[in-house]
Amino acid sequence: MQQRVRDILGWYDHENPGVRANIARMLQTGQLAGTGKLVILPVDQGFEHGPARSFAPNPPGYDPEYHAQLAVDAGCNAYAAPLGFIESIAARYASEVPLILKINNHEVLYDEKDPMPALTSGPRDALRLGCAAIGYTIYPGSANFRAMYEQLRAMTEEAKAYGLAVVVWSYPRGSGLSKEGETAIDVVAYAAHIAAQMGANLIKVKPPTAHVELAEAKKVYEKYKIPVGTLAERIQHVVQSSFNGKRIVIFSGGAAKDDAAMFEELRAIRDGGGFGSIIGRNSFQRPKDKALEFLAKAMDIYLGKF
Amino acid sequence: MQQRVRDILGWYDHENPGVRANIARMLQTGQLAGTGKLVILPVDQGFEHGPARSFAPNPPGYDPEYHAQLAVDAGCNAYAAPLGFIESIAARYASEVPLILKINNHEVLYDEKDPMPALTSGPRDALRLGCAAIGYTIYPGSANFRAMYEQLRAMTEEAKAYGLAVVVWSYPRGSGLSKEGETAIDVVAYAAHIAAQMGANLIKVKPPTAHVELAEAKKVYEKYKIPVGTLAERIQHVVQSSFNGKRIVIFSGGAAKDDAAMFEELRAIRDGGGFGSIIGRNSFQRPKDKALEFLAKAMDIYLGKF
Amino acid sequence: MQQRVRDILGWYDHENPGVRANIARMLQTGQLAGTGKLVILPVDQGFEHGPARSFAPNPPGYDPEYHAQLAVDAGCNAYAAPLGFIESIAARYASEVPLILKINNHEVLYDEKDPMPALTSGPRDALRLGCAAIGYTIYPGSANFRAMYEQLRAMTEEAKAYGLAVVVWSYPRGSGLSKEGETAIDVVAYAAHIAAQMGANLIKVKPPTAHVELAEAKKVYEKYKIPVGTLAERIQHVVQSSFNGKRIVIFSGGAAKDDAAMFEELRAIRDGGGFGSIIGRNSFQRPKDKALEFLAKAMDIYLGKF
Amino acid sequence: MQQRVRDILGWYDHENPGVRANIARMLQTGQLAGTGKLVILPVDQGFEHGPARSFAPNPPGYDPEYHAQLAVDAGCNAYAAPLGFIESIAARYASEVPLILKINNHEVLYDEKDPMPALTSGPRDALRLGCAAIGYTIYPGSANFRAMYEQLRAMTEEAKAYGLAVVVWSYPRGSGLSKEGETAIDVVAYAAHIAAQMGANLIKVKPPTAHVELAEAKKVYEKYKIPVGTLAERIQHVVQSSFNGKRIVIFSGGAAKDDAAMFEELRAIRDGGGFGSIIGRNSFQRPKDKALEFLAKAMDIYLGKF
Amino acid sequence: MQQRVRDILGWYDHENPGVRANIARMLQTGQLAGTGKLVILPVDQGFEHGPARSFAPNPPGYDPEYHAQLAVDAGCNAYAAPLGFIESIAARYASEVPLILKINNHEVLYDEKDPMPALTSGPRDALRLGCAAIGYTIYPGSANFRAMYEQLRAMTEEAKAYGLAVVVWSYPRGSGLSKEGETAIDVVAYAAHIAAQMGANLIKVKPPTAHVELAEAKKVYEKYKIPVGTLAERIQHVVQSSFNGKRIVIFSGGAAKDDAAMFEELRAIRDGGGFGSIIGRNSFQRPKDKALEFLAKAMDIYLGKF
Repeated sequence: MQQRVRDILGWYDHENPGVRANIARMLQTGQLAGTGKLVILPVDQGFEHGPARSFAPNPPGYDPEYHAQLAVDAGCNAYAAPLGFIESIAARYASEVPLILKINNHEVLYDEKDPMPALTSGPRDALRLGCAAIGYTIYPGSANFRAMYEQLRAMTEEAKAYGLAVVVWSYPRGSGLSKEGETAIDVVAYAAHIAAQMGANLIKVKPPTAHVELAEAKKVYEKYKIPVGTLAERIQHVVQSSFNGKRIVIFSGGAAKDDAAMFEELRAIRDGGGFGSIIGRNSFQRPKDKALEFLAKAMDIYLGKF
Repeated sequence: MQQRVRDILGWYDHENPGVRANIARMLQTGQLAGTGKLVILPVDQGFEHGPARSFAPNPPGYDPEYHAQLAVDAGCNAYAAPLGFIESIAARYASEVPLILKINNHEVLYDEKDPMPALTSGPRDALRLGCAAIGYTIYPGSANFRAMYEQLRAMTEEAKAYGLAVVVWSYPRGSGLSKEGETAIDVVAYAAHIAAQMGANLIKVKPPTAHVELAEAKKVYEKYKIPVGTLAERIQHVVQSSFNGKRIVIFSGGAAKDDAAMFEELRAIRDGGGFGSIIGRNSFQRPKDKALEFLAKAMDIYLGKF
Repeated sequence: MQQRVRDILGWYDHENPGVRANIARMLQTGQLAGTGKLVILPVDQGFEHGPARSFAPNPPGYDPEYHAQLAVDAGCNAYAAPLGFIESIAARYASEVPLILKINNHEVLYDEKDPMPALTSGPRDALRLGCAAIGYTIYPGSANFRAMYEQLRAMTEEAKAYGLAVVVWSYPRGSGLSKEGETAIDVVAYAAHIAAQMGANLIKVKPPTAHVELAEAKKVYEKYKIPVGTLAERIQHVVQSSFNGKRIVIFSGGAAKDDAAMFEELRAIRDGGGFGSIIGRNSFQRPKDKALEFLAKAMDIYLGKF
Repeated sequence: MQQRVRDILGWYDHENPGVRANIARMLQTGQLAGTGKLVILPVDQGFEHGPARSFAPNPPGYDPEYHAQLAVDAGCNAYAAPLGFIESIAARYASEVPLILKINNHEVLYDEKDPMPALTSGPRDALRLGCAAIGYTIYPGSANFRAMYEQLRAMTEEAKAYGLAVVVWSYPRGSGLSKEGETAIDVVAYAAHIAAQMGANLIKVKPPTAHVELAEAKKVYEKYKIPVGTLAERIQHVVQSSFNGKRIVIFSGGAAKDDAAMFEELRAIRDGGGFGSIIGRNSFQRPKDKALEFLAKAMDIYLGKF
Repeated sequence: MQQRVRDILGWYDHENPGVRANIARMLQTGQLAGTGKLVILPVDQGFEHGPARSFAPNPPGYDPEYHAQLAVDAGCNAYAAPLGFIESIAARYASEVPLILKINNHEVLYDEKDPMPALTSGPRDALRLGCAAIGYTIYPGSANFRAMYEQLRAMTEEAKAYGLAVVVWSYPRGSGLSKEGETAIDVVAYAAHIAAQMGANLIKVKPPTAHVELAEAKKVYEKYKIPVGTLAERIQHVVQSSFNGKRIVIFSGGAAKDDAAMFEELRAIRDGGGFGSIIGRNSFQRPKDKALEFLAKAMDIYLGKF
């Protein structure tokens, strides 16, 4: 085992050997194996936004097999999806790429001001499907925060008892926040900290903006002149807020955007000390050859190649 | 076992042998045995609309035995009904035709803007009554969506542990949608996708219209020129949205209508790649001889005879 | 065992021997033993309306022993009451008359537009007290319908696992219905059907009026000219709606009324094919000798004597 | 065992020997041992009203030991208090005086129109602390009535399985009632009846006034000329409403009042056939010597001495 | 074991040896070992207020290890923190300083008028991490009081069964109280009493003001001339309200303030008979050498040195 992986696992010395082995599995898979960096392919957009919005841009993506094979071919560290998609491919892919079962899911047919995803599967499903981890989304800022945190707590306890790792998507949202506040630097750092305090092994947040949302926080950011001017600085602050860098924090790419902009964002994540990216729509919504090319470049960034 | 059935079962290689055997039982029963197509008789209207509205048009239907015998005589793939109706006939029919226990039921004595059916039986009842599957209705678009999805998740886990198959009625409805939106193509395709992601073995939806309900979806349908002009095209889109055709999707006939119109609809379902129909009121609300004649023609359509 | 009882038990061939034996116990007890008809004494009014309203008209009724002895002396098929009343007499009466533990109860100190009774005992209490059955009230038409149906489901499953029969009081009520609608023919028939679909062994409803409540139902009653002009016709329709007469449906007497009117009602129930009556206030709110006389006449009606 | 105690236990022949032994323990303890009468010391006011309002009038009462010793020295039949107070003294007093663990408690820091106490301990606590009984408060008339009744049901089932007796404080309160209605004769009699129907072994209510709250009840009280003019008559009516006197019904003293008025009330309770009193603030809010004097006189009343 | 510790443990003679041993562990650790006084370091502000507001003033505090080492170096009796922070250090510190797992946590991304913290870990986590106690916050005065009390009850029962001590943060808050009322003397004394009645081993409250919030309480404070003019008098009243001093009551320091003011407050706590302090922000938001100096002085106050 590479020293970097050993070091990272050292931060998780409170976990049982099963959980540590599954964290290691993700860190030792694919193009970035052993570097301590991760690029993960998530495909839950079919559930979250509907099938046409997700797969019409690249119709082979209607087929669940497409994505698992893409994750393998691209050399991703892991592949994350809801129950149905994982069930469709687990028998053939569980030993090819670490699988993350996304156990709760949000959809848009009923719009909630204070959203909460539905629990659609659980740790026992992850076990029977040979997964390495469960994934769970919380929405700090939603009136339903308590219900989500308490469900996460129950799922985490069960998953870790089975030796599964726990990946938390911590996405601020809901009537407690302005729209701009959802990606505000203070809010994103806070959301990452909450996930860490709740025992998440991997934390996924959105790249933060320089906006500071909370009045009480604003005073502190100004008084102590916390540097949040560049994305790299903000990434650094989020990583610091996650137990001083002792938790794996990765960042989502968000909506499809210009490749150059995307690569610049990835470099900032790398330069700020982020542990990697979870790249969905930018991967599977383009033809496979383009996707492989894109992912290869993304990984090269984390390898320090450009 | 016919190759087509073997192929279909291949899509369910994540299920235990019990579940696969029960899916096979439905695919290998009746006039359409071995074709990969299904015509199922559902009789839950007594609960859903009241006994007179359901059975006054053909009074022998007040008797639960009538329907089970009709399913057998017509050569249906399965018979679906609520607990009481299944209990009334299980001792004599469980070995004659695969039974689907409809474990949740909606009624109209209290009208809800955001409906949720009541759970009226469960997997253990299905087991003791010799059923092949449970049936469960979700209403995507209802404010109660989360409660339904989470109850479905619990029922699915229990049912599959017993080797029972899971049939999901996915009927968009509730304050999240316009009336027209309930059968909009984007919404129906989305509803089928959600059911698939939640682990449904068979998915039942309504034949969609060409209306596109959601603004974000509309952009995509237009941009990618997704063909939804004919019913066959729309059926094809729904089937594609259900894991690229790797889940069994069947369609309901809806309210009684002109036979010619009904047969045209069935041909469109067939031509679009649908796996079959679930035909209730069009069957049991006419005299038995007429019902047998009607069902025979419906099956002939799926057999490609006209 | 008399052939009529054997025939009735034949409709319950999905139940275990324990449940069937307890249904048989009720059918083979008292003056109507073996006829397939039942007259049951219920005394839950103390809980439902308060003690003075219930027992002041005949003060010996304050004593729980009075009612159990009345049921025995009158030759009733069973005696139904809440926990406290059953506990008070079970040690001496469980072997004298089948006891029905009424496990949920409504009261009037807090008035709810959408009522739901409180669960005050359960199947395990029924077992330890030597009862033949549990009794449970649902209020179709109440906003709480789902909670009641699901609680009934749980209680039914537990009770039948212990070999106890299940008696369901199905009383439409709540904001989904007009006051007149509570006893409308379409609503009462629907309520009986729902109870049957949920697995009730005995169903208790109120004698329906000729009013039709639901607009959709009205069309059907008119189109098919369903005869509901006389009480006997309406009883017949309710019995037909309960699995074509294959479930035991009995009728309550309601508030105390003129004896002649009461007897006429009983004759209509008998002539319409009803299985009997549950007679509370008309029994225990008059002196015991008068009550015995009244109940004897009621039974004579079911015996076809007048 | 005295014949009176034996007679009373005869009313509880549905209970297991453990429960009966604990009822007997209370009836055979203290100055009133063997008379079938009880004077119980309850000290839950610290929780219900706050410490200063409860103990400032007699500061030794801040100490939990004070009350247990007072109950012993006065010869009370039992001592009732919340978890903390019982834990503080159980090791030394469980064998000196029967302890009643008051498992739910109300407080006034958050004021609810429709109150419900919080469950703060349970039957297992009562067991480990050597208690004879649990105590539980219901508020008939509160919108939360169902939640309280169902929690009481669960606690009763568990407590009796352990051989513990169940004491129910039945205090009408909430938006279903007027302020005057909380102590109306019809409402108090009804509240006692509900507690009896739910399986309470001892029932505690407030002394009722002559007011009749409920319109339907008023008609009956007038029609049958139920005597409620004197407190003794009202007590008699409450006792009759509690299974014709076959349940132990005791009365609270309420807020501290003039001793002469208090003694007159106690005589009325005795003369009306009440089984005793539960006297809190009138005991512990005066100096100990005065309290002992007061309680001795109260017991003398029940012994018929004046 | 010192006599003072033995005396204190005597108040907890209802607890099992495991719980008593863990109370003793806290009393016998650090600079104040054996004195019956405690200074505890709590670091839950990252969760409660966000990471920047908590740790920017002294950035080494972003690292969970910093705080555990600070608690050891300062000679605190115990260190309290949420799950993530405890997990990060438990393997190295569980045998160095008693750990208190703060199992519920409040945050400010969604603001509630009637707050309730989320349960983020539990007694089983405390066990596996080698903790001495769980910590739980209740907000008396919140509309959610019942849910918190009942969750506390469940957690307490489980924790004590494992031999863990229970520390309750009792912080009045919510729509039942004015802002000033949150620290009113009557309310704080009441809050401490409630925690004691619920079985708390250690109780943490805020230093009260002389304001009296509740009208009924005001009459009593005036009538009995309860001295609440000085902080020491108020502390004394809170301690008396906690079972006459037979429960360990400690006080929080609140927001960072002038050191002189802080020391004066600590002296008042000591002089009023308080058992110690829980000092968070005043410790970890200054450089470590200053923090050690500050904590040493605080402990000297409890040792009576100045």
